Amino acid sequence: MYHYMITISYDGSSWSGWQTQGRHVCLKPNTIQDNIELALAGIFGEPVRICGSGRTDAGVHALAQTADFFCKKQIKSKNFLSEINSALPETIRITSVREVPEKFHSRKSAVSKTYAYFVSLSEKPDVFLAKYLYNPYLPPVSLAENSAEEPDIKKMLDAAKILCGTHDFSAFTTDKTEKSHVRTVMDISIDTKTLSSGCKYLKMQFTGNGFLYNMVRILSGTLLETGYGKLTPEQVSSALKSRTRSNAGATLPSNALFLCSVEYPPYL
Amino acid sequence: MYHYMITISYDGSSWSGWQTQGRHVCLKPNTIQDNIELALAGIFGEPVRICGSGRTDAGVHALAQTADFFCKKQIKSKNFLSEINSALPETIRITSVREVPEKFHSRKSAVSKTYAYFVSLSEKPDVFLAKYLYNPYLPPVSLAENSAEEPDIKKMLDAAKILCGTHDFSAFTTDKTEKSHVRTVMDISIDTKTLSSGCKYLKMQFTGNGFLYNMVRILSGTLLETGYGKLTPEQVSSALKSRTRSNAGATLPSNALFLCSVEYPPYL
Repeated sequence: MYHYMITISYDGSSWSGWQTQGRHVCLKPNTIQDNIELALAGIFGEPVRICGSGRTDAGVHALAQTADFFCKKQIKSKNFLSEINSALPETIRITSVREVPEKFHSRKSAVSKTYAYFVSLSEKPDVFLAKYLYNPYLPPVSLAENSAEEPDIKKMLDAAKILCGTHDFSAFTTDKTEKSHVRTVMDISIDTKTLSSGCKYLKMQFTGNGFLYNMVRILSGTLLETGYGKLTPEQVSSALKSRTRSNAGATLPSNALFLCSVEYPPYL
Repeated sequence: MYHYMITISYDGSSWSGWQTQGRHVCLKPNTIQDNIELALAGIFGEPVRICGSGRTDAGVHALAQTADFFCKKQIKSKNFLSEINSALPETIRITSVREVPEKFHSRKSAVSKTYAYFVSLSEKPDVFLAKYLYNPYLPPVSLAENSAEEPDIKKMLDAAKILCGTHDFSAFTTDKTEKSHVRTVMDISIDTKTLSSGCKYLKMQFTGNGFLYNMVRILSGTLLETGYGKLTPEQVSSALKSRTRSNAGATLPSNALFLCSVEYPPYL
């Protein structure tokens, strides 16, 4: 058997997330995983199951998600990419493929993952980026009083410092299935940028050894609420210690969340 | 009466072009013009007709289209932008407003216009840009034999030199209404760029004193066919002289065409 890792870029807007939903017969694939497995089955002439580095929710995008699979035939990288990409929808693209050791596991071998969350700071965002930005002045999750209000980045960084490190992140998830809610957040960066269109946005980037269900969206909501003065860094610290979901900030919408990369040890 | 010019950015993907379609009562606006006039009527409490610098077809985008209108009330720029943008859909945005002399006319006062056409040179384009790129390997307009084939930029520039200048562009339009098909193309630039995602694209940019119906899309098709060796620069020259549509290249799809800017004399 051969063992391959693929990296995948996708616009999640029109998909029901990464993971296959149940074991029903799917006539029209509606998840990223289903689409890739269908394309692989077309190439190999038999069902191929892929194992992703983790799930992404409906509407979440990826610049470089990873997955691995076993197959009987050896792959020629260039031909394979050409063949599979022509079988995939426009919004899903395999960007690379490489052979990996038998013991490699997309999820378990990963050292860390990096996510980014994008927030519009313009009264009305760039028309070409709007669908990828969270707008804090609009429903359903409205955090800013008015469009002139800018978040206080210094306070956000103070709260980010509190959240970095190894903690029980029970206050930052709605998960009920994982054995442990302890995770390590290695880095949080917060930057603003103004594009030539005049569109200003804020980017929050998170690197951690793993993220719980909804964790990045709740971390983003908590930091942004701190920026808008709805929470103080001290309250963020208390929320973390309380391990109670209701003490942390809002779960921001999925459309502005990107899985940027999954990091592996160099020898794998 | 006050007289204002607005600049407008729009993602044309979901709209039936710029111009109001006929004089029917429109319950749900389906053009850019209709949407803006509806928003202006809401602000001024009476119908306001706008005059655009020109039409853009269904699916065509704009970074900075211009239009002007007369109204009875004076506008405060910041309030006006805030109010009108919150009334407009996410895909249409007024980026600026300024008072202009009475004699100003969005179309007639314009000195030149600049359009850009984007072509994917990757086997499969970046998933976030795919809808804004023309893919020469795919139907409905398939110009390249295979995805490994790259257009010859030097030949394209040779053909571009022939097209620059003042000519009768009858071979490059399907228009039957204009009195004259003579236009001046001041500049054509052709560049390629590779993004960090690995996506490579070609940009053709056209500046002219006016463009006929479908002219930029046919110029783009003609240049690209020259790049792929389907036309020679000599044939482009003959096509121009022939004033016969069938001698020029294909009309490329609208989704990859952007109106970049409309230029006015500094005193207006």
